[in-house]
Amino acid sequence: MRAPVAAALIIGNEVLTAKVEEANGAHLIRRLREHGLPLCSVHVVPDDVDAIVEALALARRRARWVFTSGGIGPTHDDVTVRAVALALGRRVVVLPEMEALLTRAWGKKAPSSEAWRLAEAPEGSRLLHGAQSRFPVLACDDVYLLPGVPELFRAQLELCLAELPGAPVQVRELFLSVGEPEIAHALDAVALALPHVAIGSYPTWGDGAAYRVKLTVEHVDAAVVTAAVERLVRELPEGCVLRLG
Amino acid sequence: MRAPVAAALIIGNEVLTAKVEEANGAHLIRRLREHGLPLCSVHVVPDDVDAIVEALALARRRARWVFTSGGIGPTHDDVTVRAVALALGRRVVVLPEMEALLTRAWGKKAPSSEAWRLAEAPEGSRLLHGAQSRFPVLACDDVYLLPGVPELFRAQLELCLAELPGAPVQVRELFLSVGEPEIAHALDAVALALPHVAIGSYPTWGDGAAYRVKLTVEHVDAAVVTAAVERLVRELPEGCVLRLG
Repeated sequence: MRAPVAAALIIGNEVLTAKVEEANGAHLIRRLREHGLPLCSVHVVPDDVDAIVEALALARRRARWVFTSGGIGPTHDDVTVRAVALALGRRVVVLPEMEALLTRAWGKKAPSSEAWRLAEAPEGSRLLHGAQSRFPVLACDDVYLLPGVPELFRAQLELCLAELPGAPVQVRELFLSVGEPEIAHALDAVALALPHVAIGSYPTWGDGAAYRVKLTVEHVDAAVVTAAVERLVRELPEGCVLRLG
Repeated sequence: MRAPVAAALIIGNEVLTAKVEEANGAHLIRRLREHGLPLCSVHVVPDDVDAIVEALALARRRARWVFTSGGIGPTHDDVTVRAVALALGRRVVVLPEMEALLTRAWGKKAPSSEAWRLAEAPEGSRLLHGAQSRFPVLACDDVYLLPGVPELFRAQLELCLAELPGAPVQVRELFLSVGEPEIAHALDAVALALPHVAIGSYPTWGDGAAYRVKLTVEHVDAAVVTAAVERLVRELPEGCVLRLG
């Protein structure tokens, strides 16, 4: 349980109703890959407390760290703080540190009483500050609550990654001249013999393709990857490897 | 339970490890919106039976119809059929109709014994045939198993939509000159009074923006949308609506 991997929750009706093209998920996937922290799921859910609570509970059974994107704000559709608190079994409280930051930003008078909702957080939350980001990241029980606005999301994600472990993955590719049905037997055998190595098989589609299947071989240890590639080359149908990448 | 909405499962390590930019999720979101079938979640999970079973169980508690993308094929990392069968409490069987199609495509001899895995399906599955698509869609208990290859995914999705209900949504937009803290009170009141209307609030970021917040108002009935927009204009701070869209 709670493997040392990450999961992501993208929160927002606007994504599921095609009003915006979601970009934070793809950015997170790329950055976690570069950082070397495995990602086990990305779940897009609506601005709905029950849906967020259920999705977060599932994510936390699978992953030690969870990133949320969106639903952080003062309006009626911003329910992330409340839902995360509920999923973690914590009360929603006003963070004095956040209140002080907002007071400094607004001067004496807040734009409205609802504006103070921005200082609310699950009890026990901490704030991550960084030189790059105007706003601190809200974190609680290894859940990082990031805003949906892409510029803010990106800046805050870097603050999170700075405190998270990572081991970049080594990848080799094999481009094949035959289709998946022809290689399934050899792939089965190698995948079974090397369960610690991630082997992917990706067929192309259409007549103009330069190869029929691309295999990927991944592990954090380059020597393990090399050995697995050599074994694949031995066991695949003779002459089917067009090139290695 | 089982609301008349859809959910999607995008299956594939290659998506979560940034080896491909996932396109089927975004396409599905757009097409369901155009068709008028609400979508309640999009969940990207790895090629892992347990992860797919758990995600599908959650999706089916929330949604009547579920689309899966990817993991349909003859190699070791194609586990969607097995996982969907497990989640539905059904055995994996060979579909005679699919076997006949493959026999016709391959002639007398299959490329390998593993190639026949393409004829496997959860017991009780049906096939949807269409003029546009070379391959039929596999469907079982309102779960549609679509391939991850984008061209095939798109063609097969159209076959599914042809048998699903839809009521296109009416949307109006309000562009505002003030920020979310200033409008949170009025939005709370209108959202509470009109719980059947979906009202979204989307702030802009940066100094060059032409407006500070975009509100969206949605319902299948245009008259309901118009009434909600009028009510918002009445209750929002005076003069803050720059324009309607």
